[in-house]
Amino acid sequence: MADVYALLLAGGRGSRFWPLSRKKLPKQCLHLDGDLTLLGQTFARLDGLVNAGNTLVLTGGDMEQPVRAALPGLPADSFLVEPSGRNTAPCIAWGGHEVGRRTNGEGIVVVLPADHRIGRPDAFRDSIRQAIRLAKETGDIVTLGIQPNRPETGYGYLELGESVQVEGVEARTVSKFCEKPDSKRAARWVQGKTHLWNAGIFVFRVDAFMRELATHLPATSTALDRLHQDGVTIADVWGQMDATSIDYGVMEKCERILTIPIDVDWSDLGDWEAVGQHLPEIAGGTGMAAGAVAKDASGCVVHAPGQVVALLGVTDLVVVSTKDAILVMPRERAQEARSIPDLLEQAGLSAHT
Amino acid sequence: MADVYALLLAGGRGSRFWPLSRKKLPKQCLHLDGDLTLLGQTFARLDGLVNAGNTLVLTGGDMEQPVRAALPGLPADSFLVEPSGRNTAPCIAWGGHEVGRRTNGEGIVVVLPADHRIGRPDAFRDSIRQAIRLAKETGDIVTLGIQPNRPETGYGYLELGESVQVEGVEARTVSKFCEKPDSKRAARWVQGKTHLWNAGIFVFRVDAFMRELATHLPATSTALDRLHQDGVTIADVWGQMDATSIDYGVMEKCERILTIPIDVDWSDLGDWEAVGQHLPEIAGGTGMAAGAVAKDASGCVVHAPGQVVALLGVTDLVVVSTKDAILVMPRERAQEARSIPDLLEQAGLSAHT
Repeated sequence: MADVYALLLAGGRGSRFWPLSRKKLPKQCLHLDGDLTLLGQTFARLDGLVNAGNTLVLTGGDMEQPVRAALPGLPADSFLVEPSGRNTAPCIAWGGHEVGRRTNGEGIVVVLPADHRIGRPDAFRDSIRQAIRLAKETGDIVTLGIQPNRPETGYGYLELGESVQVEGVEARTVSKFCEKPDSKRAARWVQGKTHLWNAGIFVFRVDAFMRELATHLPATSTALDRLHQDGVTIADVWGQMDATSIDYGVMEKCERILTIPIDVDWSDLGDWEAVGQHLPEIAGGTGMAAGAVAKDASGCVVHAPGQVVALLGVTDLVVVSTKDAILVMPRERAQEARSIPDLLEQAGLSAHT
Repeated sequence: MADVYALLLAGGRGSRFWPLSRKKLPKQCLHLDGDLTLLGQTFARLDGLVNAGNTLVLTGGDMEQPVRAALPGLPADSFLVEPSGRNTAPCIAWGGHEVGRRTNGEGIVVVLPADHRIGRPDAFRDSIRQAIRLAKETGDIVTLGIQPNRPETGYGYLELGESVQVEGVEARTVSKFCEKPDSKRAARWVQGKTHLWNAGIFVFRVDAFMRELATHLPATSTALDRLHQDGVTIADVWGQMDATSIDYGVMEKCERILTIPIDVDWSDLGDWEAVGQHLPEIAGGTGMAAGAVAKDASGCVVHAPGQVVALLGVTDLVVVSTKDAILVMPRERAQEARSIPDLLEQAGLSAHT
């Protein structure tokens, strides 16, 4: 499918993975659960679906180097480096614009966050293929919605509307983009099967998307029209683009958005707790280490690839050890790891953030 | 005092300090609480009391290298390397024999375990001076007994007998050497002030000691008589010496042993729990680290000199991290660290023991 492009969103920071993640080494560049970085896995997952040369990677300036290093095979101009962080709308708009230039407005774009894990990549590819067919045929933006398996309060949700069937693809309209719910609401949504998780994975025909952009974010659209005219660079127009999310700025305002429910063992690997569920078993829990022994220890999550780990009488701890730093915390507080870099700054230890 | 010799007992292993201690890097060679190794501290503590050249260091073959490295200034023949571990009696007997040779039987010997911490070294030196006077004058073996500050069940005790006053030195006889007591007995002894801790620190006149040896451990004495005759080496006679402790083999059998009670902020630094009490304060507890931050954490003991440490929501943990290994356990189970090397052996990780 020569006209299909992938837009990999690799601009996130992921400070919940300190001390493995750093200011200049974001989550998508980490080897959290395998041989490949998460970004490398995201790219590899598209094998056979998107030509390598049709991949564009959006990222931020301070993480450009590790992002390029994670995908060494890509041409240099595959990397779109945002002049500053301005949320997802400008970045996807820019990516769409580039695909439009390269395809004379006829490409299909698959937008993928670069820091997720997918346990069933074949099923995922099948769903992407369906989404491409659907987007091609209808001109609608098609999002892939994750079948929830728990009342998660940390994600946005897609409210399901009417059924749509196009060329043998079963889809639903999205009747509403829902913010992160409280736990009661989440439970109702999941039990009632009325909602899917919004994982930020979507597919569109570039011509259709650019039309939606012109309608809903005209300033962004106008700015992009000037790009590459008379030597205008992205830095020149970046500040004129709407600093908003793609969901809020575009998706919610479209007349119709379609979704394909997917069940692909998806995880956003949001913190060490989530990562721990996908690491190999070791003595005392799961993890990566040069070796492990345990005595009266269980449920721990370990990342200490260069060290042998001994756990004695401890339960459900996270232990992360890198060359210059070490973190110990209970699994249930794994989200709070993101506060550590600030504490380090305050303690005059910013070299380790 | 040119005729005073020190016998530093540096043959212990200290596996409770894994992963810092190793088969070939025993406790006395570690920098547990300061710039100097414990062995180095033990030597430095005798400054002004024992000439450096009058120091003999008893150790085992597999730890000879780090033991020599901890005291780089000593002459090569200051190190007496035991052919095998046979408890303290043969090793002190051998050391006594060497002092006898060097002093024509007229030296005074101060026996010191090489892995203790003493917070008040001046007071300690004063007590050693008193013990030397007492031993010189009476010919009795004089042990320094630690004033207990808690009903410790992990040490042997000295039962106090009658008062003895010699040349202005106040001492007591030892009426009994007591094995490690249960907690009830320990509480009674400490409250009643009837006992001191036996820290294995003692002073004797070498001629008197060799006489006691001949009486109570004649095989050991005979073996030593042959040493250096017709090229007989320590390896030749070592197996003929009684493999027993100095307390059991000699001290308990002497007609009179004297003790000087001392209060010198002594600790045997028996495990990370004990060491933690003497480490500098850091965020979240005490320890050595390249830096530390904490959130809802307290009472932890950290040894990670090359790493910044972040503790989040954890209490009273021990965290030790070295180049190739890491240990996490509750403080109250610090004694059990000694079981880790065996677990590693069983797991095929003996390179890390």
